[in-house]
Amino acid sequence: MREHGGNLDLAVQRFGGRARDWIDLSTGINRQPYPVGEVESHFWSALPSRTEIESLNEAARQAYATNAPVLAMGGAQAAIQLLPRLASGSRAHILAPTYNEYAAVLSAAGWDVVEVPGLDALAGADLAVVVNPNNPDGRRHDRDDLLTLLPRVGRLVIDESFADAVPELSLAAEAGRPSLLVLRSFGKFYGLAGLRLGFALGGEGDIAALSAMAGPWPVSGAAIAVGRRALLDHDWAKATATRLERDCERLDAEVKSQGWRLLGGTLLFRLYETEDAQAAQELLAGARIWSRIFEQRPGWLRLGLPGNETEWARLAAALSG
Amino acid sequence: MREHGGNLDLAVQRFGGRARDWIDLSTGINRQPYPVGEVESHFWSALPSRTEIESLNEAARQAYATNAPVLAMGGAQAAIQLLPRLASGSRAHILAPTYNEYAAVLSAAGWDVVEVPGLDALAGADLAVVVNPNNPDGRRHDRDDLLTLLPRVGRLVIDESFADAVPELSLAAEAGRPSLLVLRSFGKFYGLAGLRLGFALGGEGDIAALSAMAGPWPVSGAAIAVGRRALLDHDWAKATATRLERDCERLDAEVKSQGWRLLGGTLLFRLYETEDAQAAQELLAGARIWSRIFEQRPGWLRLGLPGNETEWARLAAALSG
Repeated sequence: MREHGGNLDLAVQRFGGRARDWIDLSTGINRQPYPVGEVESHFWSALPSRTEIESLNEAARQAYATNAPVLAMGGAQAAIQLLPRLASGSRAHILAPTYNEYAAVLSAAGWDVVEVPGLDALAGADLAVVVNPNNPDGRRHDRDDLLTLLPRVGRLVIDESFADAVPELSLAAEAGRPSLLVLRSFGKFYGLAGLRLGFALGGEGDIAALSAMAGPWPVSGAAIAVGRRALLDHDWAKATATRLERDCERLDAEVKSQGWRLLGGTLLFRLYETEDAQAAQELLAGARIWSRIFEQRPGWLRLGLPGNETEWARLAAALSG
Repeated sequence: MREHGGNLDLAVQRFGGRARDWIDLSTGINRQPYPVGEVESHFWSALPSRTEIESLNEAARQAYATNAPVLAMGGAQAAIQLLPRLASGSRAHILAPTYNEYAAVLSAAGWDVVEVPGLDALAGADLAVVVNPNNPDGRRHDRDDLLTLLPRVGRLVIDESFADAVPELSLAAEAGRPSLLVLRSFGKFYGLAGLRLGFALGGEGDIAALSAMAGPWPVSGAAIAVGRRALLDHDWAKATATRLERDCERLDAEVKSQGWRLLGGTLLFRLYETEDAQAAQELLAGARIWSRIFEQRPGWLRLGLPGNETEWARLAAALSG
């Protein structure tokens, strides 16, 4: 399996304890999840109906402020898995460094993948990928710059997995254009990664093709019930964005004692430059706090945000210890 | 969308009412579902870990009595969606009539699909598909006959979506052979179709290839939590099989008043030959009971089993009305 955040198996294997003993800050998943509440029995027992799936898609259109065709899928990852079959051609350019599944999935399907450092170098690709804001460094790209790129590539995929609460960055409203595909994650901002829900927003042809590949029941009943409720709960989203902003500042301040330098981030994670990320990871692991480091970047440490005061206190203790 | 059971949207559109007013007998989904119980918050919030997914796979191996490599997926349907990319070649032979997604998915991917009436005619195919027991007619095939076929086809897919509680039919124990792939549905027998869970059992190469295509998180946390518990609950499975057998006899007796003739079935549905299936469907629809008919077979009516005495009474009233 490729390097990912959220791999507590590895933390347990290397440093001991049980998975539940750990505070997992190795991901960009909100640790104050949207309350799941009661899932009506019907959503467990019956096949999701067209009407229900469409009502989930409509909630996504509202939340993402778009009229574009939308397809609910088992996470943004489910869309990534299908990219090699959706796009025609063989040259993929990926703005890097970024989420490693794009290069891996496309390479495995025989695509010629080039990781490029800037937007201009994406031009000429059959398939170009930009994660905006980017994971792990939080780099942001203006909508206009991305739209300028559109005619210069065969198909442009914008992964907005971390764009909740920054609507000014989102190209969701433009996603009806035929060569633009926008991917949204549900589980990160709403803190429900186990639900497996995400959305593809795109031109009619692309969404129909993805739908045919994903099959008649692309998401679970629980994803419909909980996802719809959460996406329409604007008050929760607003309060959460405010809380996350505050917590980002708090985390940045908290780690200053270590001399770690903020390289960037989003509302859901921060990327720090350290002298030795492996040593930093081990320091935190001693307090059963799991973090993300990067084989190719020995100084980089990515941290998600603690979810409550107990977790903040454990982090503070680890850093002062 | 293709003709499927479970399409209550259509029932409501044609005959009125709200979806919740209907008794849906148009599917082969057990209407006394396995009790979902409490799903620990962790399964909603965290990404499914390798360890958790493997424990679900292990529960499936126990339930299906096999040591073969197993992959949990979002329903047997999720495996069907990937068949065109798994198998090489272009000629698919499908034992028909059967579940219509095989022909549809393979045709859409450019395969040359031939529907054949008997096992012998499957020979010579790059990919051969047998649903055992078959949907909708309940036809059963001996393990030995299927194994004899194995060297005569490129790859043999056995769909055992309705093979729970008839282990004597299952080829799960043989699924480690390289050219054999066995698909199991979880949601039908356990009555939890909305959970989206199924399994592929096959040779190491096939399971690795399917896993790569399905991605790192092929099922939800809830599917892991509930699926594992259910698959290890042998008492529930045994009691359910006994109850379903009894209910099948009861349904067959119940419809005799109409002169409908049993063509076949499984523990989860019965197929009847009627004089006019559309008229039969309308008779039942008058009592908000939804059934499955088949465009190509104007006499065929497929019925699932009522889930409780209230539902049995409504069925009896509809038939006597």
